[in-house]
Amino acid sequence: MQTCDKSIRSVVDSAEDPSTDFPIQNLPFGVFERDAREGPRIGVAIGDQILDVAGAAEGGYLGGLSDGAKNALLKPVLNDFAAMGPAPRMNLRRALQTLLGLDGPLRGSQIAKRLLVPQRDVEMRMPFAIGDYTDFYASLHHATNVGSMFRPNQPLMPNWKWLPVGYHGRASSIVVSGTPVRRPYGQVAKADEGPAVFQPSVLLDYELEVGAFLATGNPMGSRIAVGRALECVFGLALVNDWSARDVQKWEYQPLGPFNAKNFATTVAPWVVTTEALEPFMLPGPPRQKEDPPTLEYLKSGDDVVFDITLEVWLATQPMREKRMPPMLVSRGSFADMYWTFAQMIAHHTSTGCNLRTGDLLASGTVSGPTPDSRGSLLERTWRGTEPLKMPDGSERKFLQDGDEVIIRGFCSKPGFRKIGFGECRGTIAAAG
Amino acid sequence: MQTCDKSIRSVVDSAEDPSTDFPIQNLPFGVFERDAREGPRIGVAIGDQILDVAGAAEGGYLGGLSDGAKNALLKPVLNDFAAMGPAPRMNLRRALQTLLGLDGPLRGSQIAKRLLVPQRDVEMRMPFAIGDYTDFYASLHHATNVGSMFRPNQPLMPNWKWLPVGYHGRASSIVVSGTPVRRPYGQVAKADEGPAVFQPSVLLDYELEVGAFLATGNPMGSRIAVGRALECVFGLALVNDWSARDVQKWEYQPLGPFNAKNFATTVAPWVVTTEALEPFMLPGPPRQKEDPPTLEYLKSGDDVVFDITLEVWLATQPMREKRMPPMLVSRGSFADMYWTFAQMIAHHTSTGCNLRTGDLLASGTVSGPTPDSRGSLLERTWRGTEPLKMPDGSERKFLQDGDEVIIRGFCSKPGFRKIGFGECRGTIAAAG
Repeated sequence: MQTCDKSIRSVVDSAEDPSTDFPIQNLPFGVFERDAREGPRIGVAIGDQILDVAGAAEGGYLGGLSDGAKNALLKPVLNDFAAMGPAPRMNLRRALQTLLGLDGPLRGSQIAKRLLVPQRDVEMRMPFAIGDYTDFYASLHHATNVGSMFRPNQPLMPNWKWLPVGYHGRASSIVVSGTPVRRPYGQVAKADEGPAVFQPSVLLDYELEVGAFLATGNPMGSRIAVGRALECVFGLALVNDWSARDVQKWEYQPLGPFNAKNFATTVAPWVVTTEALEPFMLPGPPRQKEDPPTLEYLKSGDDVVFDITLEVWLATQPMREKRMPPMLVSRGSFADMYWTFAQMIAHHTSTGCNLRTGDLLASGTVSGPTPDSRGSLLERTWRGTEPLKMPDGSERKFLQDGDEVIIRGFCSKPGFRKIGFGECRGTIAAAG
Repeated sequence: MQTCDKSIRSVVDSAEDPSTDFPIQNLPFGVFERDAREGPRIGVAIGDQILDVAGAAEGGYLGGLSDGAKNALLKPVLNDFAAMGPAPRMNLRRALQTLLGLDGPLRGSQIAKRLLVPQRDVEMRMPFAIGDYTDFYASLHHATNVGSMFRPNQPLMPNWKWLPVGYHGRASSIVVSGTPVRRPYGQVAKADEGPAVFQPSVLLDYELEVGAFLATGNPMGSRIAVGRALECVFGLALVNDWSARDVQKWEYQPLGPFNAKNFATTVAPWVVTTEALEPFMLPGPPRQKEDPPTLEYLKSGDDVVFDITLEVWLATQPMREKRMPPMLVSRGSFADMYWTFAQMIAHHTSTGCNLRTGDLLASGTVSGPTPDSRGSLLERTWRGTEPLKMPDGSERKFLQDGDEVIIRGFCSKPGFRKIGFGECRGTIAAAG
């Protein structure tokens, strides 16, 4: 918690702006590329800059970094460093705060010019090489909303409050923020019994989610106890789990969503560490007395939820052409989730399934109790029956070509600097 | 087809035994390890031996191998070589047949001692590094059988004959034949509405499947046409998709199987190339006139099914202790599948989902029309109502601790040498 102290100040001016996502208390990790010759490098965001962590490690500016940690920081993805576990990460956090501090060695130094790179001058890459991607369904509000549309007689399945429902997703098509997303073709049925036609999806949607990147996993055949599960998490990042609702409706029974989801999943470039999020952990999740008991393997006396404000913004192509700002579509809180990442990890490994460094576990759509906190268009427009009125005069039931979806997230509370997650962006390209 | 000619003979005596899985017409690829110091190496099976392909490449015994192909063959997995596409694979096949031929350079040579390794002296490793694993549900008999148990009112979903239903599986827990499989814990419900308890699965099952390892894939946003899809396949291997039926029944709605499947999937070590299988391709799959039309993107005038005989054998621990042979539980044919690998690939990529070299696509349980051709215990014992009588006097409804499941597969027809797939073995270890 020391490293979250509001009084720590940075030599980087833009990090002192109260509105920045990236004060010195945050220091989220990412992988950036300045030029193709140099290739992808590990960095941390600080204000509107990136500290070239690889360069700082090479230059010996990070204190007593072990050779192992130094080598890991020179890799083009975070996996090797993450796999070392929490202690090197916390040591590095302290060393970075010293280096980037108001009275640190960068002050008035030429070194700063070499190690600080403006964010606008780089392209961000995938932070981790992802072995497996698992998507959960952990919001009670989302599951109830969607269930009531697809299965009005039984919105919530009997299993839902007993276990964190999840499914295996597609790892190959996870892309970093900014990558265009092509509208998928798929089979769509005219009626519940068919016939089906093959056409571009017309009910294209986003899903606002939070993902956890794993630092460490477990050997196959072993389990991770719920009380230790959060120690396995490197950090959290914003996720957009794009979904073709018309494809999903026709294909999803009995084995779950497949082509409706596998064309693209977008992750934000910045992974906010659990250390930076410590001030924003709340005890939880709460349970109502009518809820079923939490089984022992999912029960932890000190489990937490993360109080992250999450927003979806939407900009149509005409809006962007007219330089109109994006429109806020929804705002909710990650604290509203029924299941925690610790519970998801404990459940996932309860069979002996092995998790690995770099695996991505996503929360499922984050929806809150109110209409304006619903994290997908399916819910926000209630299956298209309540279209959004856009500032350019158009309406949106589902996504149109040229629409840009921007997910943002941040933590804030009195006495602490705002901790932001940056942006998870994607623009819909026409089917082709 | 020249390389499938029955008249080609090998210098390896055991490859001339008509009962061998591995005549010189087969030459399936695998990765073996002789000792830890040397590490995993690429080889091909020949009779009861393995030709050390890496060693042959290093020694210059493989004719005009390109530098690229040679380097790829020195890797500990097949991915790099597979990614080069079909031409180098076919060239290598011819070079290997020359090297291993009756009048080839190994005859009476000391080189043979260096390059041929007895299969009994090595451990087999995973043939590919698997990025993503997708499991389909492509047998009409299996889908109908299982559907009639889980959903008696609607055994076959309306979508089933329109598209090859599939779901994303877990890549991290795919293991090579011989790896023990620990009985998973999981949530099991006492009744459809719960309550659930957390306990070792008591309805543990195998699923007899065939997997396709991909040689080449597609860039994200593009599709693979059904008529070109088989060119992307490196070869086929036997797969056991272990399943905890009690866990599956409680968890699978609405997002599909998750923990019921992710504790382990076993693959056989030998990947039989499409070149070796050419004589056993049949035009197909057949359709009945009551079947819905095949949509254009799944339709190919020259699609094929593979006529592979598939068997499941079972040995209880007492049987093994008494040196009793395993019991044949089922025998079916892969030619009975409703959907082909070409259709699965075309459907999978129809959204623009990118497939990658080394991806594993499994067929789903291969069941035939008769009770003795059902590829899972769930079906074979009809949910435990028709237990198997084992030769040691015991009965089997589902798998018990110590049971060994052995999947075998082979192609045979007059005028051709038998092409075998080796074995896919796994023994159930007690929950722990």
